[in-house]
Amino acid sequence: MTYFDLPFQPDELTQEAIFAAHEGGKLAVASARPLRSRHDLSLAYTPGVAQVCKAIEADESLYPRYTGAGRTVAVISDGTAVLGLGDIGPKAAMPVMEGKCQLFSSFVDVNAIPIVVNETDTDKLIEAIAAIALSFGAINLEDISAPRCFEVERRLDKMLDIPVFHDDQHGTAIVLTAGIKNACKLAGRTLEDLQVVISGAGAAGIACCKMLLDAGVKDIILLDSKGVIHPDREGGLHPVKQEIAEITNPRRVTEREAAFDGASVFIGLSRGKVGEDLLKRMAEKPFLFSLANPDPEIEPELAAKYASVVATGRSDLPNQINNVLAFPGIFQGALNAQATSITPAMKLAASEAIASIVGDDLAVDYIIPSALDSRVAPAVAAAVEKAALA
Amino acid sequence: MTYFDLPFQPDELTQEAIFAAHEGGKLAVASARPLRSRHDLSLAYTPGVAQVCKAIEADESLYPRYTGAGRTVAVISDGTAVLGLGDIGPKAAMPVMEGKCQLFSSFVDVNAIPIVVNETDTDKLIEAIAAIALSFGAINLEDISAPRCFEVERRLDKMLDIPVFHDDQHGTAIVLTAGIKNACKLAGRTLEDLQVVISGAGAAGIACCKMLLDAGVKDIILLDSKGVIHPDREGGLHPVKQEIAEITNPRRVTEREAAFDGASVFIGLSRGKVGEDLLKRMAEKPFLFSLANPDPEIEPELAAKYASVVATGRSDLPNQINNVLAFPGIFQGALNAQATSITPAMKLAASEAIASIVGDDLAVDYIIPSALDSRVAPAVAAAVEKAALA
Repeated sequence: MTYFDLPFQPDELTQEAIFAAHEGGKLAVASARPLRSRHDLSLAYTPGVAQVCKAIEADESLYPRYTGAGRTVAVISDGTAVLGLGDIGPKAAMPVMEGKCQLFSSFVDVNAIPIVVNETDTDKLIEAIAAIALSFGAINLEDISAPRCFEVERRLDKMLDIPVFHDDQHGTAIVLTAGIKNACKLAGRTLEDLQVVISGAGAAGIACCKMLLDAGVKDIILLDSKGVIHPDREGGLHPVKQEIAEITNPRRVTEREAAFDGASVFIGLSRGKVGEDLLKRMAEKPFLFSLANPDPEIEPELAAKYASVVATGRSDLPNQINNVLAFPGIFQGALNAQATSITPAMKLAASEAIASIVGDDLAVDYIIPSALDSRVAPAVAAAVEKAALA
Repeated sequence: MTYFDLPFQPDELTQEAIFAAHEGGKLAVASARPLRSRHDLSLAYTPGVAQVCKAIEADESLYPRYTGAGRTVAVISDGTAVLGLGDIGPKAAMPVMEGKCQLFSSFVDVNAIPIVVNETDTDKLIEAIAAIALSFGAINLEDISAPRCFEVERRLDKMLDIPVFHDDQHGTAIVLTAGIKNACKLAGRTLEDLQVVISGAGAAGIACCKMLLDAGVKDIILLDSKGVIHPDREGGLHPVKQEIAEITNPRRVTEREAAFDGASVFIGLSRGKVGEDLLKRMAEKPFLFSLANPDPEIEPELAAKYASVVATGRSDLPNQINNVLAFPGIFQGALNAQATSITPAMKLAASEAIASIVGDDLAVDYIIPSALDSRVAPAVAAAVEKAALA
């Protein structure tokens, strides 16, 4: 059976069911141990708690052990680049942050709490996050618009002695790279021989590009809303894109349509639709990874007509490139190791761990584990912890 | 049986048991609904979540209903005035914040999350809290030093459209007032005839003084580390204390020892010890409320020798003046009413609700409900919600 034979069976998601799943929020905070007696209260609160406060005051290294901070991840957004919806603001972003925290709690032994910041000025956003960072063991930045997200992550990771990880960048890159590797294995291709078009040069596009280059891909062309990214583009480029322009697009293509000529991989990380005309320009049997959420750049039915491997970002279709395969295990591994940063080696280890779960079951509709596969997070956590301690 | 007959039976709190109760932190964050299937994921996360995001973007009034923000309380501290321990810093303060959140989750249907802020500059502390305030339905400020706490609370409550409540001030005042009222009932005294000495003019001292005045007490003398607060004190007074000086100390007492002469009530809210010499100056059978934690200003055994009613802040002794009687119900009531502030009427309603739970069981060792009495929070919540909506 090939991907093409699979009936598309999107779940029926009624408005009623969706809103019912959000009523009152999606998280529950509880006491880790029941408080049933005066004795319990005396231990956990006054007077007992004072002993723990004094111990931490005297020796801060006890902090991650005797508070929850060492196993708490803050999922933080300013609501400027939410899903495929764009700059919808912090309140409208909250359901996504809560959903993310739900996923953490469903897959790993981490307390994740959602924080939305009512501040889009880069300096002030950084200040606000830094001011509360002591409360957590790691920070998952989420849905912050590019190019601000690069600076926010870089500066915070440098300022703070806990990991700061912008999941839209690296989570996506890690899972995508795992998927591309397995697609190559399935199709008998090599990373070195791929000709890749990435549509979208935002947070995810830049990070995926960098990680694929690190993994060995040679020929990548990045597209943004103004067309092909190349060093000599009229009007100039933002420094982040300029840096990418220098290390991609080896054939110096300048026209959007031409970028698709002979391409063997399309990676969609924007909202820009890709029609049949462009698919016809690509090589035979390409890999089509249309990851925009909730509406893929290439309609899945159309993609299936041309591709050897189809992947999307949707949970109701096979081969979902879902960050949830990466972030729970990555943070669990980093917290276990008391890492101060998420290094490239840790990201690579996570990607390898995800790809290897598929193993011998590799198939056209199974290039990446299911988002619900409970084997993934522990495998990623172990690999990341090992890489962190190495 | 009187209080004096009660054997003191402090629980044995071993270091081992205390630290075991803190290992890994005291809170657990979980998904409110299990994510078991791809369908569950599609509803709570992509693609379903996008519908909720869009709905909130279009109509912000849906925010408290379809996210957890409407039932989340942030317990926030800068660690500058923790328990009786003082300025121990944000990390060492965290166990108290977590304990507070545990209490919330044990008594009411509220998600409470602990945040420590690494910022003691008043303006920057306010900015940092304001920047993340959208994430919550209410803010419980905790263990922030006086007099900064007054400004922090006042300015934040004005800036934000959610309640900001400094529990060290008002929680203590609400429970203390309930206890004093019931002590009067037991001893056949009236609030108007009491002669009160309050030791400690910090957050709790100022708030207790104001609430007792509101409740009808006429004669209160406040002591701070420099002695009696009166309008003409050498060296001048901070504006907050100056304001209090104008409305207290009607007999214009200026010496610390003289403040105790004939006093019928002592309320201890500082770490300053009070010895037998001062107790001998007081009226017969005073009320001795020594609330410092973990070490009461008057040793309980000594207090029992002189007093008609003894109360402390300790959970291992009878008549504990514990904020936990107030804050869970107050926040639950305020959130239920979608209140934008905690008004004096709501505080008064909370105090009345607490005092009335004792009812006909009033006794020398039972002037205030047990901190574990599960009837209290719902009664307080109902009273506060009613007052908020009135």
